[in-house]
Amino acid sequence: MLIKPGPLLAQIENPDDLRKLDPSQLYQVCTELRQFIIDNVSMYGGHFGASLGVIELTVALHYVFNTPKDQLVWDVGHQAYGHKILTGRRKKFHTNRLYKGLSGFPKRKESPYDTFGVGHSSTSISAALGMAIASRYKKDETQQHIAIIGDGALTGGMAFEAMNHAGVSNSNLLIILNDNCMSIDPNVGALKDYLTDITTSHTYNRLKDEVWNILGKISKFGPNAQEIVSKIESGIKASVLKQSNLFESLKLRYFGPIDGHDINHLVSVLNDLKDIPGPKILHCITTKGKGYALAEKDQTKWHAPGLFDKVTGEIRKKVYEVPQPPKYQDVFGHTIIELAKENSKIMGITPAMPSGCSLNLMMQQMPDRAFDVGIAEQHAVTFSAGLATQGLVPFCNIYSTFMQRAYDQVIHDVCIQELKVIFCLDRAGFAGADGPTHHGAYDIAYMRCIPNLIVSAPMNEQELRNLMYTAQLEDTKGAFSIRYPRGEGVMPNWRTPFEKIEIGKGRLVKQGKDLAILTIGHIGNYATKACQALQEEGIDAAHYDMRFVKPLDEEMLHEIFSNFTKVITVEDGCLMGGFGSAIVEFMVDHGYQAQVKRLGIPDTIVEHGEQLELHRECGFDPEGIVRTALHLVDLGIKI
Amino acid sequence: MLIKPGPLLAQIENPDDLRKLDPSQLYQVCTELRQFIIDNVSMYGGHFGASLGVIELTVALHYVFNTPKDQLVWDVGHQAYGHKILTGRRKKFHTNRLYKGLSGFPKRKESPYDTFGVGHSSTSISAALGMAIASRYKKDETQQHIAIIGDGALTGGMAFEAMNHAGVSNSNLLIILNDNCMSIDPNVGALKDYLTDITTSHTYNRLKDEVWNILGKISKFGPNAQEIVSKIESGIKASVLKQSNLFESLKLRYFGPIDGHDINHLVSVLNDLKDIPGPKILHCITTKGKGYALAEKDQTKWHAPGLFDKVTGEIRKKVYEVPQPPKYQDVFGHTIIELAKENSKIMGITPAMPSGCSLNLMMQQMPDRAFDVGIAEQHAVTFSAGLATQGLVPFCNIYSTFMQRAYDQVIHDVCIQELKVIFCLDRAGFAGADGPTHHGAYDIAYMRCIPNLIVSAPMNEQELRNLMYTAQLEDTKGAFSIRYPRGEGVMPNWRTPFEKIEIGKGRLVKQGKDLAILTIGHIGNYATKACQALQEEGIDAAHYDMRFVKPLDEEMLHEIFSNFTKVITVEDGCLMGGFGSAIVEFMVDHGYQAQVKRLGIPDTIVEHGEQLELHRECGFDPEGIVRTALHLVDLGIKI
Repeated sequence: MLIKPGPLLAQIENPDDLRKLDPSQLYQVCTELRQFIIDNVSMYGGHFGASLGVIELTVALHYVFNTPKDQLVWDVGHQAYGHKILTGRRKKFHTNRLYKGLSGFPKRKESPYDTFGVGHSSTSISAALGMAIASRYKKDETQQHIAIIGDGALTGGMAFEAMNHAGVSNSNLLIILNDNCMSIDPNVGALKDYLTDITTSHTYNRLKDEVWNILGKISKFGPNAQEIVSKIESGIKASVLKQSNLFESLKLRYFGPIDGHDINHLVSVLNDLKDIPGPKILHCITTKGKGYALAEKDQTKWHAPGLFDKVTGEIRKKVYEVPQPPKYQDVFGHTIIELAKENSKIMGITPAMPSGCSLNLMMQQMPDRAFDVGIAEQHAVTFSAGLATQGLVPFCNIYSTFMQRAYDQVIHDVCIQELKVIFCLDRAGFAGADGPTHHGAYDIAYMRCIPNLIVSAPMNEQELRNLMYTAQLEDTKGAFSIRYPRGEGVMPNWRTPFEKIEIGKGRLVKQGKDLAILTIGHIGNYATKACQALQEEGIDAAHYDMRFVKPLDEEMLHEIFSNFTKVITVEDGCLMGGFGSAIVEFMVDHGYQAQVKRLGIPDTIVEHGEQLELHRECGFDPEGIVRTALHLVDLGIKI
Repeated sequence: MLIKPGPLLAQIENPDDLRKLDPSQLYQVCTELRQFIIDNVSMYGGHFGASLGVIELTVALHYVFNTPKDQLVWDVGHQAYGHKILTGRRKKFHTNRLYKGLSGFPKRKESPYDTFGVGHSSTSISAALGMAIASRYKKDETQQHIAIIGDGALTGGMAFEAMNHAGVSNSNLLIILNDNCMSIDPNVGALKDYLTDITTSHTYNRLKDEVWNILGKISKFGPNAQEIVSKIESGIKASVLKQSNLFESLKLRYFGPIDGHDINHLVSVLNDLKDIPGPKILHCITTKGKGYALAEKDQTKWHAPGLFDKVTGEIRKKVYEVPQPPKYQDVFGHTIIELAKENSKIMGITPAMPSGCSLNLMMQQMPDRAFDVGIAEQHAVTFSAGLATQGLVPFCNIYSTFMQRAYDQVIHDVCIQELKVIFCLDRAGFAGADGPTHHGAYDIAYMRCIPNLIVSAPMNEQELRNLMYTAQLEDTKGAFSIRYPRGEGVMPNWRTPFEKIEIGKGRLVKQGKDLAILTIGHIGNYATKACQALQEEGIDAAHYDMRFVKPLDEEMLHEIFSNFTKVITVEDGCLMGGFGSAIVEFMVDHGYQAQVKRLGIPDTIVEHGEQLELHRECGFDPEGIVRTALHLVDLGIKI
């Protein structure tokens, strides 16, 4: 196909088509691609600002490099919408992030252009370096490997681990540093300042000032002095600046900074870099949300704004006539402030998720007591441990899926030492549209095997508040984990007074005689519905909200297994080693012999979709619980 | 107590005593302390070179700073023997690393001078920063916080995460970079080169060369030119070097490099730094093994040499008359080479443990196919994933306890993508003398909950070889984990021919009728002994080596639960969610009702000691298994 004049994007099925264009046409492609994303995200939702910020980079990379043979690895992948649209997925793009639709992140199964699945941060350099060293081993010198990583992702430790290796690897690796000063929230830390610093050339400017300063002192050498200094200055500029560069320190050849929105310049620079062997980094300055004024202005809000009117920028929000339950994250965000006002030892820590976990509320009100430490889960946990050694009470809020990144620190730096750090695991259970990289599926299993750790989950807002309250009390010792899901709870009037919950005590939600349903956390609300439905079928199910996976309420369990021969466990977490597994361990350890059916996330990767869709798929939506109960009761009659 | 002339160390019960000395006496303290460590480690074993390398630093730090109010955090802690000896533990030091004796690492429960428990690498800056920010919050401006971290530990990503935070923290933090170019093996990577570079002042030298080079070209300006350049040079030296420094880039004030063995200079520099507020780093050059010539010469060998003759330096090795079983790590090291000779796709990866896991053998023979990526577990796994995307077959060897640090990468970068990475988890189960920070207690639980992952453990050398062989075969898809313990196996003639093991198939070791013992991995050899002992008691126990935790051998389990009502599971791993838990899940899922007793590591922190001592403590040594079997059979009779 030859590309015809007129609209171009509609004619681009894959990067081969793009590469047929004249460089002068790329500006138009960028404009159309940007508009396509605005049109789509405003109608169907998704991540927004990140992809708008790399439109020119995306077009330039696919134009200059021979994708998919040359391999692009997009770090995190929020920004890969343009990439998806240019690589054969334009017509399916309206299914982005929907159940059975396109993934919101690059995904190997979806396209050969998606060379590496992403979702979590800071993995791209490691992965691309693996690819580059593989091609060096295969003696394919022509293949190019490009990691595109944001300045936020660069604060994640593994990016540094990878650069340390890349610098001495003699591999054909290009790192594109997409520097927009943002994670989801504004980026933080010394590295960000440094990048700003080299961007505005302070280093060089300072050096120059210094030289001129000295020059003043040596004026006795006459008028020629100025000329000499000027010559020296330009001569040493290259070597000095080179040496003064953090990336050059790590043996990565540094290029830039350049304007990441100048498509023609990008193409020309990337073409030049293609021929330079060895590991190198190109520093591109971009603006998150570029081309959509509101998104440029409030980049956090427009990271993933939901549906909006693309003309007015009005974000569509459902209007309710009666008060709605709050998001769990907001219950956390408000409650920690309430508690911190009473307990001066409380501190709040988040690794780069202040708006995602609502710690931003405390950061605004108590800036000396709430910390965004950047994309740095490992540091967040051990930093919290350091605070705890001094008698402070840190609430360390990390999404369940990201806590996987700080697993060693939870064990080694907190629990072995019996330090009192309170972990709040937001987004536990299915994350929804973000899909498998973001599902908080494993935390019950991987946390409950750690000694000296209390593992809990609230069924509603009141329980979350009371667990937080209980955890911070003086006489509650050691580490304490509280998991709760993404999204809303169930209590419109959620600002209940604090009550201490006895550690390891469950709660009888509903009495019954035919079978017992044991639940952990918010998913217990499904059991409440299921019990109602079962009652209509004439089945009287008891419902226990266990609240603690560890320690288990042994008294309650003895009672349950003494009185019931049919038990269902329900959790929004993996079945292997999870909550139900803990119940079964108890039962067998104590010689009980009930029929137990465990409901939860099966031993498979569950894709993206609405939470309820995924619960249904896994059979633990309310109907699934009812079905299981009926089956169990039937089975019982048969036996 | 006033310090008397003569031997000094014996008069120092704690740092207060040390601080009574005149600076001129510190040299003697260092000499005595060094000799004390040589005497002790040669007789009782332990880590050696690291502590010898920081004798002067240790003495200087306790002399200058007001410990324990001022807080020292020793990264990893191999090097903290001098610290322990000076802080009240000299007389107990002969119990170092013994069962119920002193810990080989700093440990909060042991002493107020041990401000933070360590063992794993790269945690010290995070922890000390937490302490520093706590004291800032408490408005205690006098308290000092010092992290002592090696150049090896600095490659671990979380150290960078912490520096990124520290640089903008305005906290009273001093980082001592103990630069000896070593991890346990020689340090690797770009950072190491950089540190060498600034140490030998190449940066400044290069700059100077450049200036003189230009000077040649501007000779027309006459004889004064040389003088001008010289003045400029000295004037800008400070600012240029400062700007060219990686740590200054991260907003840490950089001091050094200085000689870390010059006690008087160290004292004077540390005294100066005490008064400089804000985050800062002091770069000290030291020699691992300093003061013991053999240890200086072969630093890896003398990291932890075992017992030795301190005069001749001869390392004591037991002499056996008959061939002994090899270490599992060596079976791995030799087997991967055998396999790699046949399968050109095989690559080997270790994060800084080449001699510990014996990948050094492959690194010597096949340097383009075996990689030490530095202390960088996260990168090691995702780098392996990158290799796997290109069809290569990486064996990524990480100790069980360190795999905790790459947990997210195993899930997110390998298993979600169904990539074929083979994980070899050395030191699984109790690590022995290294203690709780190094026990590989949790891997079965935290690995078996991950989808798309085969989880296995060999009972002996032959099985390890065959699992490795099976894992790399073309038709074995996806990720494959193989765990094995520290120390020796059981087969002196271990170089058996390769045989494929069917995935998910266990092995009947011994038939029996009274009860079934199900084991996973090397600990199965205890069950063999137990079965013999039980036979003598007239009890006929069957023994199954399950080999796979996932997938379970369901056929075999159906047979077992159909034929036995008494079952024991044995694992050298945590009971919560572990192997026995998987067996119990199966039993309950399939409606079997046997009495099951699970043996393994209980839900508590088990301290250090010989492996057998710890197995005995936890009740799964051979005698423990026998005891449990007798109890179970008895119970059965009673019922």
